[in-house]
Amino acid sequence: MGNVNKVIGRIPISKVWPEVDGGDFPAKAFLGEVITFGATSFREGHDLIAVELLLTSPKGDTRRIRLAEGRPGLDEWTTQILLDQLGNWSFQVSAWEDEYHTWLHNAEVKLQASVDEELVMLEGERLLRRLAENTKGKDKKALTDFASQLVASGTSPAQRLSTALQAGLTELADRNPLRNLETLSDPRTVLCERRLAGSGAWYEFFPRSEGATRTKDGNIRSGNFKTAVKSLDRVSQMGFEVLYLPPIHPIGTSHRKGPNNTLIAGPNDPGSPWAIGNTAGGHDTIHPELGTEADFKAFVKAANKLNIEIAMDLALQASPDHPWVKSNPQWFTQRADGSIAYAENPPKKYQDIYPINFDNDPQGFFDEVLRVVTKWISFGVKIFRVDNPHTKPVDFWQRLIAEVNRANPEVIFLAEAFTRPAMMHALGKAGFQQSYCYFSWRNRKDELVEYLNELAHESANFFRPALWVNTPDILTSYLQFGGKPAFKIRATIAATAGATWGMYSGFELYESVARPGAEENIDSEKFEIRVRDWDAALKSQDTLIPRVTLLNKLRKENPALGQLRNLVTHYSDDPEVLVYSKHLAAEHNGGKANTILVVVNTDPHSVRETTVHLNLQALGAQGEIKVTDLITGQKFVWGEHNYVRLDSFTEPAHILRVES
Amino acid sequence: MGNVNKVIGRIPISKVWPEVDGGDFPAKAFLGEVITFGATSFREGHDLIAVELLLTSPKGDTRRIRLAEGRPGLDEWTTQILLDQLGNWSFQVSAWEDEYHTWLHNAEVKLQASVDEELVMLEGERLLRRLAENTKGKDKKALTDFASQLVASGTSPAQRLSTALQAGLTELADRNPLRNLETLSDPRTVLCERRLAGSGAWYEFFPRSEGATRTKDGNIRSGNFKTAVKSLDRVSQMGFEVLYLPPIHPIGTSHRKGPNNTLIAGPNDPGSPWAIGNTAGGHDTIHPELGTEADFKAFVKAANKLNIEIAMDLALQASPDHPWVKSNPQWFTQRADGSIAYAENPPKKYQDIYPINFDNDPQGFFDEVLRVVTKWISFGVKIFRVDNPHTKPVDFWQRLIAEVNRANPEVIFLAEAFTRPAMMHALGKAGFQQSYCYFSWRNRKDELVEYLNELAHESANFFRPALWVNTPDILTSYLQFGGKPAFKIRATIAATAGATWGMYSGFELYESVARPGAEENIDSEKFEIRVRDWDAALKSQDTLIPRVTLLNKLRKENPALGQLRNLVTHYSDDPEVLVYSKHLAAEHNGGKANTILVVVNTDPHSVRETTVHLNLQALGAQGEIKVTDLITGQKFVWGEHNYVRLDSFTEPAHILRVES
Repeated sequence: MGNVNKVIGRIPISKVWPEVDGGDFPAKAFLGEVITFGATSFREGHDLIAVELLLTSPKGDTRRIRLAEGRPGLDEWTTQILLDQLGNWSFQVSAWEDEYHTWLHNAEVKLQASVDEELVMLEGERLLRRLAENTKGKDKKALTDFASQLVASGTSPAQRLSTALQAGLTELADRNPLRNLETLSDPRTVLCERRLAGSGAWYEFFPRSEGATRTKDGNIRSGNFKTAVKSLDRVSQMGFEVLYLPPIHPIGTSHRKGPNNTLIAGPNDPGSPWAIGNTAGGHDTIHPELGTEADFKAFVKAANKLNIEIAMDLALQASPDHPWVKSNPQWFTQRADGSIAYAENPPKKYQDIYPINFDNDPQGFFDEVLRVVTKWISFGVKIFRVDNPHTKPVDFWQRLIAEVNRANPEVIFLAEAFTRPAMMHALGKAGFQQSYCYFSWRNRKDELVEYLNELAHESANFFRPALWVNTPDILTSYLQFGGKPAFKIRATIAATAGATWGMYSGFELYESVARPGAEENIDSEKFEIRVRDWDAALKSQDTLIPRVTLLNKLRKENPALGQLRNLVTHYSDDPEVLVYSKHLAAEHNGGKANTILVVVNTDPHSVRETTVHLNLQALGAQGEIKVTDLITGQKFVWGEHNYVRLDSFTEPAHILRVES
Repeated sequence: MGNVNKVIGRIPISKVWPEVDGGDFPAKAFLGEVITFGATSFREGHDLIAVELLLTSPKGDTRRIRLAEGRPGLDEWTTQILLDQLGNWSFQVSAWEDEYHTWLHNAEVKLQASVDEELVMLEGERLLRRLAENTKGKDKKALTDFASQLVASGTSPAQRLSTALQAGLTELADRNPLRNLETLSDPRTVLCERRLAGSGAWYEFFPRSEGATRTKDGNIRSGNFKTAVKSLDRVSQMGFEVLYLPPIHPIGTSHRKGPNNTLIAGPNDPGSPWAIGNTAGGHDTIHPELGTEADFKAFVKAANKLNIEIAMDLALQASPDHPWVKSNPQWFTQRADGSIAYAENPPKKYQDIYPINFDNDPQGFFDEVLRVVTKWISFGVKIFRVDNPHTKPVDFWQRLIAEVNRANPEVIFLAEAFTRPAMMHALGKAGFQQSYCYFSWRNRKDELVEYLNELAHESANFFRPALWVNTPDILTSYLQFGGKPAFKIRATIAATAGATWGMYSGFELYESVARPGAEENIDSEKFEIRVRDWDAALKSQDTLIPRVTLLNKLRKENPALGQLRNLVTHYSDDPEVLVYSKHLAAEHNGGKANTILVVVNTDPHSVRETTVHLNLQALGAQGEIKVTDLITGQKFVWGEHNYVRLDSFTEPAHILRVES
């Protein structure tokens, strides 16, 4: 073996960030996201260094940005940059000998101690002349003049230095550095995607339930894209930006599941939309009961008019009736008896689903999926919610997402993988723009503090979390048994603690009854069409609709809430009172800082009184702060330690905006 | 920008270890060290994978070693390997579809549930025939026979499988895998250096003090290499393996420091050995008062005879009288007034020292240092203790160590850098085989638990800690005010918690009086010759010599203590009772496990009673364990929870060997 050491530079740069796996993958960012760039850099001895970020935008412009020293003792250098262009940003860190500040520090100390006074002036003069040599025009003359002044007679060295500093010597020197011993880090990349990749409010409904009606004979008439168009207003009025639809393709009839996941479907049971494909078509086809392709196009258009994007489901599996089964049997696994393998988790069988075999004909299947995705992109779909990506090869997704994004960089893939962390993180690195996460199962303060910090800081470079309060698959015991306060608490945290949150319809109606022994709603919409009386709900005072509407309004009005990485958790003395803040500095918000502080009682069954202890620096504040509760309109003056009382039965949260 | 993504393999391998900075530097190991190799690897869906380590020894032999699953839910795969060859080991991780175990798992579950019984047998038959195709000789025949048996008539599927398993089917299949979908990680390197690089017992003395005598007129007659030879017996009898000598070169006379670091030396003051160089010579010269080059050679030889290696100081700085000042003024910094810059930390001046300028003539100075080091290597010196490496450029050290180790891979460099973590870690990555660390300032239980775990686990791949109890520069307040129990406690922990420990002479005599306001001994040997009455000390019962001797004997008898990475800390209910263990598995110790459990009261002023809670798995034990206290010889039966009483005034520690 030869030398396996990387050559260390003259000024060591031992770490840079953001970075994923030593540069193997780009760090994720979204348009408008504030990213902390930095490095660990240091030198031998006492002399000072300067550290700069060389940041190259997707358009190719390179800026040099001076980094500031970070946490004491750690040789960290950082800056925060708001990314304002889509595409790949590249950066390097440059570290060099800061001769001017080394000299200035020594000069100030020595003049104070009356040591070597004329000598340090002479050294200053020499240094400024060297800076001048490297410079042109006005700055050259100014540096030369300062050099002469430092060694001029008539006044004391201390007076000469003081005069020069007041006249702007430091700014001038900083503008014209020599960058002696400059060392560059390896280059790294940050991929800046559009805002909805990382920040947005999502809603989910089943189009067949929207506008569905119960007929006189007790049967249900399915909704469709035409009736569902009317529901877009409801979604829009609550302030959602993305509407995700479960699969809209023809549904298999073989082994179709009945209500509550029973094995035998009745003649009127509509089946699970995830059992994709029948004689009418497969992944490239619209379920006839939902309408025509024209109806779907019109639906997408109507949504877009309301500033709602449609997210489509991409579930790579087939019902036994899917056209692929006949046209491309090599995309499935043939068992030893010649039959096609259905899904199973032995000894459980899922005979309504044929999983794909990704290894028999990888190129053929890839081409087919690319064709399907490309078709729906042509219909105006720019977001795909991928069903169970963790049961398909990671390298397939990496290739598919890269290929789709090459032609359509605006397309977003959301990974629905609830599995072990290694896989969830790998899918993020493979390119998934967004991922469902374990937020639904983090309900107590301590576990929220730990998990929210992980999401906002530890994994944010490669894993963008979507905080869903419920889904057709998820109705946690917290919601089943927490009553209406539980719904309010979860929506409040989801909408304000991450950057993307999501809600599946029915949540705003407090639908909380589970199929016995399961963590999902009874009479699940996966297997039945649900008829909901939205008119009555809207008239009622007893829904979560006003709260959801308020939360999405606050998100729009307070850009700090749209960021992921700015989350800071604070302390409270109560084991159930969660406190966190989000701060966006004035320079990243048009000159005015935006700071939100959330205090929430995570126990839905109690009234809690406690003291909240704030990290004021994280709020961009000192001493007293004036805050307005954006839920009640109340105003308070807060400081480092604050009394709070939160009654979950009336209002479990403060959402405070820091006014000054 | 093009594609910046690393291509993910069919079976993702998202992390391998040991690894330093994504492979930028080799991981450190020493001969006989047990290293945990591993990977994070997983696949989509439910099918099983196998993960193997492809380990190539420095001689070029490659082994495949099957990894075992690590902690649940983390997709970790690990194995432990004792490295038994010097040089660069390289490794890759291989992950592949484990078709046999996937089939076996499904078959067992299905047979249990009476589902698809003949079909799984048929699938087994097909699989075994495929394995057989890939195989030769006896195994081919055996696989074919098993294949036929699985589908033979006459007995039930469950009976056929059971018969095959009892006949060794699994071992056979594991020996002949297909390795379908095999994915390889990037290669990584582990540099295995000799044992003393990472594990040993060190002693420090000033040769001029060894054999020094007080003359009748009250002056002191310096010791020298001839008189110091006699002291080697003392060092050897205590069981030390390395003897480190402060600089042995001529000492400058200009601005020589007097006793207790005073600015003016008297005519008989010997000066600090670190003020190197006078008219007699510099770094390549022996101080005439210590003897001749022949005397030094004889001293090294005498030490080696006692199995003691000599570590020499490498302090790259000069007194104003050093020959370099005239011969190579470009190796120093010229100030604006033409004078040579002495060391300073403004406004403090250290006029007895000229620091080196590493940037004026880097090649010339590098060559000179290489010449000096090479000279002493030719005298039998194989260890250099580098003074203040953090005040010299890191890239200089990386180059020097690589160059020296190219010709002399056995040479060890020890970094004496007490500074911020970024620099300390960078020096380890630059190649320093060993480093002083902050152990001296970690005295309470909690800080020891945190720091010892950092040293043994977080930083062990690139930073090998030497745990010194004291040095001529370090006499902590814990030792100043902790009394004799403090000395016993510190030696016990240093000798058993890390892998390398060190002691500077005088520690065993409880020398604890500090220069007022300082953290070092009064009348420091750095500036004076110390006359100690070792004969009286050896006769006295009141020294730490017996304890130190016992500790080094226990280290030799218990190889678990010579490992760094096997440290596990356990819990006790008392905030001062520290508990840790070191376990060496039987397979890495000639068939017999070696396990040491240390319980120590870190409060030198108290008697503590508490309960110790053991992680028995980390001790390689279950249920009850029999232990012998290696200090007192007492035997106990311990379990998961154990009462202890530790009286610091008599015996602050248990050092327990687990007998079974």
